[in-house]
Amino acid sequence: MQVLASTPKPPYYAVVFTSQHTGVDEGYDMMARRMVELAAQQPGFLGVESARGADGLGITVSYWESLESIAAWKAAGEHRAAQARGKAVWYSRYRLRVCKVEREYGFEAASPGT
Amino acid sequence: MQVLASTPKPPYYAVVFTSQHTGVDEGYDMMARRMVELAAQQPGFLGVESARGADGLGITVSYWESLESIAAWKAAGEHRAAQARGKAVWYSRYRLRVCKVEREYGFEAASPGT
Repeated sequence: MQVLASTPKPPYYAVVFTSQHTGVDEGYDMMARRMVELAAQQPGFLGVESARGADGLGITVSYWESLESIAAWKAAGEHRAAQARGKAVWYSRYRLRVCKVEREYGFEAASPGT
Repeated sequence: MQVLASTPKPPYYAVVFTSQHTGVDEGYDMMARRMVELAAQQPGFLGVESARGADGLGITVSYWESLESIAAWKAAGEHRAAQARGKAVWYSRYRLRVCKVEREYGFEAASPGT
């Protein structure tokens, strides 16, 4: 299962989107899935990771080759419509941070039995 | 309720920690709370945001004034012990990305009735 993004050697860019959900779910899951699908088709897309806890706090981090690819994704038509609906219905607050990834490392447990 | 971090005008730094939980909860919640408490006492700490979904994927983003403050937190004694236990017990995989936050903006819905 691919839940953590496989990203290239830094530098590359990350968009950290943290949000507080209103609790109104109306179409939210469908939109969220659709946005991941659309983002993955954008030039410069490197991957995405997303989690939302029971308290409604969500964090989605998307990874990109360049600031230009992030700007193009922000301006994409269907994404702009989702942003507007996000402010109107789904999110009570959010913060969005554009970051340059400078260093990365990881850990993977040995599979049991191998 | 303070769930999204209030961070200063960029630039500052973010550590994006994405992890897949093993499902073994043994002491995990207590450790997670303790690490937030400890991190908040470190010089250069600016805030933290955290979410874990029902699928076990977690994202914690901590914010820092400098790379030096991140290095000091990584090396802190009780934190090192938690890192070791994380690899042994709690996490099947993780990625850690050190990022420079270059731009930030946000949204807050008007409170109902105001």
